[in-house]
Amino acid sequence: MQLIDIIIKKRNGIACSKKELEYVINEYTKGKLPDYQLTAFLMAVYFKGMTDDEMMSFTQIMMYSGVCYDLSDMGKFLVDKHSTGGVGDTVSLILAPMVAAAGVYVPMMSGRSLGHTGGTLDKIESIEGFNTVLSQEDFRNVLHTCGYAMISQSEHIVPADKKLYALRDVTGTVESIPLIVSSILSKKFAEGCQALVMDVKYGSGAFMKSIKQARELAQQLVKTAKQLGKVTISVLTPMEAPLGKMIGNFLEVEEAIHCLSPDYPDEHLSSDLIDLSIYLGGWMLYLAKLVKNQKEGVARCVQVLQQGLAWEHFCENVTLQGGNMDLLLKQVGTRRATLKKTISAPRAGIVTAIDAYILGTVATQIGAGREQQGDAILPDVGIELAVKPGDSVKEGDTIMTIWHEKERYEDNLLKILTHAIHIGSDNRSNTEHEQIFEVIQ
Amino acid sequence: MQLIDIIIKKRNGIACSKKELEYVINEYTKGKLPDYQLTAFLMAVYFKGMTDDEMMSFTQIMMYSGVCYDLSDMGKFLVDKHSTGGVGDTVSLILAPMVAAAGVYVPMMSGRSLGHTGGTLDKIESIEGFNTVLSQEDFRNVLHTCGYAMISQSEHIVPADKKLYALRDVTGTVESIPLIVSSILSKKFAEGCQALVMDVKYGSGAFMKSIKQARELAQQLVKTAKQLGKVTISVLTPMEAPLGKMIGNFLEVEEAIHCLSPDYPDEHLSSDLIDLSIYLGGWMLYLAKLVKNQKEGVARCVQVLQQGLAWEHFCENVTLQGGNMDLLLKQVGTRRATLKKTISAPRAGIVTAIDAYILGTVATQIGAGREQQGDAILPDVGIELAVKPGDSVKEGDTIMTIWHEKERYEDNLLKILTHAIHIGSDNRSNTEHEQIFEVIQ
Repeated sequence: MQLIDIIIKKRNGIACSKKELEYVINEYTKGKLPDYQLTAFLMAVYFKGMTDDEMMSFTQIMMYSGVCYDLSDMGKFLVDKHSTGGVGDTVSLILAPMVAAAGVYVPMMSGRSLGHTGGTLDKIESIEGFNTVLSQEDFRNVLHTCGYAMISQSEHIVPADKKLYALRDVTGTVESIPLIVSSILSKKFAEGCQALVMDVKYGSGAFMKSIKQARELAQQLVKTAKQLGKVTISVLTPMEAPLGKMIGNFLEVEEAIHCLSPDYPDEHLSSDLIDLSIYLGGWMLYLAKLVKNQKEGVARCVQVLQQGLAWEHFCENVTLQGGNMDLLLKQVGTRRATLKKTISAPRAGIVTAIDAYILGTVATQIGAGREQQGDAILPDVGIELAVKPGDSVKEGDTIMTIWHEKERYEDNLLKILTHAIHIGSDNRSNTEHEQIFEVIQ
Repeated sequence: MQLIDIIIKKRNGIACSKKELEYVINEYTKGKLPDYQLTAFLMAVYFKGMTDDEMMSFTQIMMYSGVCYDLSDMGKFLVDKHSTGGVGDTVSLILAPMVAAAGVYVPMMSGRSLGHTGGTLDKIESIEGFNTVLSQEDFRNVLHTCGYAMISQSEHIVPADKKLYALRDVTGTVESIPLIVSSILSKKFAEGCQALVMDVKYGSGAFMKSIKQARELAQQLVKTAKQLGKVTISVLTPMEAPLGKMIGNFLEVEEAIHCLSPDYPDEHLSSDLIDLSIYLGGWMLYLAKLVKNQKEGVARCVQVLQQGLAWEHFCENVTLQGGNMDLLLKQVGTRRATLKKTISAPRAGIVTAIDAYILGTVATQIGAGREQQGDAILPDVGIELAVKPGDSVKEGDTIMTIWHEKERYEDNLLKILTHAIHIGSDNRSNTEHEQIFEVIQ
C-alpha cells in the first residue's frame, strides 16, 4: 500500500477502504509516515469529506490506536458530556457532580484551553493539588467512590489523535467535520463511556459560527456514534454571549462552586449556566435510563442541587483527586490576580449583547488560555461580568472587572473590551433566545 | 506573516497577495518553512486554484528564486519550445538544430524522464561524452557558435521549483494548473528565452488525458506568459499513439539523426515526428519575426532540413558539448541493449491504434525511464515500432521489437505490449486526426 495512492484517491473524491484508513492512521502513529504526506491526506479530507462508513472506520481506528478502558463491569451506566467549546463554559464542573449524585457514572476526560475558549482541565487544575493524571486503577477507584472522575488524555489513550491534532493545528485542517467527529468520538469512547451528550455550540464565541455548520456537525456526531453502537444525542446551544459571569480558570471554578453549594446566596448564580447544566443533565439521566424522559431528568438534577448532594459529590471528588478542599473554600471570593481594572457603562440603558469572542480572545491574551500548545496559563487572571444581556444599567455602573498580571497585559485591551458589551435602549436582548435548544437524536 | 494564515486564506478561496506568495516561496526555498505546511498550501491551491494575478506573481517569484540568464545582448532572437511530455517525443532534438539553422537562438533547458514519458536530457546524454552541465559562459559560447545549447536545470536556476516539485510529486499535488504553469514558465524564462512555443499534449499518452484539460492549461500558459511580457503560443497536439517509431533514449537520438541527416533513406522517417517538428518550428520562426507567418516558417524549416543545414548544426552542437560524433555515427543502427524480443501481428488487418501510455509505461519499466526520481536509466533499452496507425499488416509480420536487459525485464511485459497495438479491419485510424493542431495565441 502506498500513501501517495491513498492521497490521490481521496483528493479525487473516492472513498477509502477501512484497510487504507488503518494504514494511514496506524503507520502515522508509529512514526512511519512523513508529516507532509499526512497533511496532503488531511487537506484532501477537508475538501472532499468522508462517507458515513469512512467516518465510522476512521473513528474506530483512531479509538483503537491506544488503550481503551472497559468500565462496563462497574455496575452503573456510564455517561459523558462533551462541549465543542465556548467562553465561560463551566458546565462540566457543575454537571459531573450533579448527575453523579443522581446515580450515573461520569468518566470525564477533558481537554485544555484552545484558541479563545477555555478548557475544563485548566480550570480544575487551578484547584491547589488537584491531579488529573490518574492510573486506570485510580481512575476506576475515584469513579467508584464519588461517581465521577476528571482526567486528562494520557499518552496511551488515542495517541493517533494527539499526533494528528498537532499537525491539523498548523496546517489549516482543524475545521473539517470528519476530522472533528473522529477526534471527539474516539477519545470519548476510548475512556469507556456508554452514552454521550454532545453540546454543540454555535455563534461568535463558538468554533462553528453558523447554526447550519453546527447542525451538520451535530448530526454527523450522532450518526457516527450510533454506527459505533453508542447512544448519543446532540444539543445545539448558542454561544453569542459567554455562559455565566466568569471567564478565567479559578474564576470559573468559583462560579461552579456558587452553583453547586447551597451555602451561597442565589444572587451569585447565573441562570443561563445553571439552566444549561440541568438541561444537559436531564438528557444524561434519560440516556442512562434513570428517568422516563428528559424533563424528569431535569427535575432530578434540580433536586440533587437543592439537597446539596451535587455539592457533596464535588467536595468528595476534589479531595479524592488530591485537591485541598479547605484552602479552596477559603479562596472563594478572594483569590484573584494581583491587578484589577474595571469598565463602567458609558451610558444608561439595557445590555443588548455581550460578545463572547472578544471576551474569550482577551481572556486568552491576559493568560487565561494559551495561544499556542504548551504555553503556560495564569490560573487567577480573568474577566468578571457584572451584567448579563437583558440587564438595565445606569451610566457609570461597573459592567466588568478584569483581573490580570502585569506581564500579560497591554493597554489596548481595555479599549477592545469596551466594545464587547452593547448597551442600547432596545430591551430585546439575546437572553430571550438562549433557552431554546435544538436536540438531534 | 504567519504561514498558517496564508494556508487558511488560500483554503478559503481568497487570493494571496504578492507579498504572501513571496514569503511562501522564498522562505521555503531557504529551508525555513516545514514541508508539512507547504503541502497544506499546495493542496489548497490544487482545490482552490489561483487568480491570473496570483499565477503571474507566483511564476515571477519562482523565476527570481535563483539565477536568471539575460541573453538579450547576444544579437539574435531567443526562442524555446516546451512540451508537456509524451511518448517518443523526440521533437526537441530535431527542432533545436533546425530553427537554429534558420537563424534563431534556442537556449534549451530540458528535464529528465517523468512517469511514463521520456526526457530530452536523458536522450541527449545517451550520446557518449555529451555534457549538459554548462557554466553560464560555456552556455553562451555554445549558443553563439551553433545557435542552440542543451542544458540541464542547474541548482542555481529556479531552486524553488526543484524543492517544490519534489514535494508535489509525493503529495498528490502535481496535477494543478497554477503549479504546472508556474513551474514551466519560471524555468523557461529564467533560461533567458524571449518567446516560447508550448506543445501541450492531450490523450492517453499525455499527462492531460482530455483536450479540455489541455486547453485550459494551454490558455493559462499563454495568459501568464503574456502578463510577464513574453510572446508565447500554445499548440494542442494529440498523444494517443507515440510520436515516431522509437521509444527509448539512444533509439530516439537515432530517430532524430534519421530525420536531420540527408544521408539516410526516407523510409526511416516517421512523418508524424517530422510534421510536428516543422509545424512547431514554423511558429518559432514566426515568433522570432524571421518570417511573415507560420506557413512561411514551415517552408523555411523544410528548406534547412533538405539543405543539410539542420544536420550541420546538430553535429556542431554535439561536438561543442563534448559528444563523440564519430562514435555516434558508428552506433546508428547497431547500438542496442543486449536482449531482443519481437511481437508479431496476431492477424492481418489495419493498425487502428497504438496505445502510447502502455508503451511509455513498459519502456519505463525496462529502464528507459525512471519510476522514482534518482533511479538510474538504461540508455540502450527501448521499443522500436515497425508500424504506425493506418499501416496494413499481414499475420505474423513483426509489429514491434523490444530491446532490453535481463535485470529490468519481466515476462508479463510482452503480454501487456501485445495489447498496445490494435489491429482491425476498419481503415479509419488515429493518424487521420494527428495533423489537426489547435493553436492558442
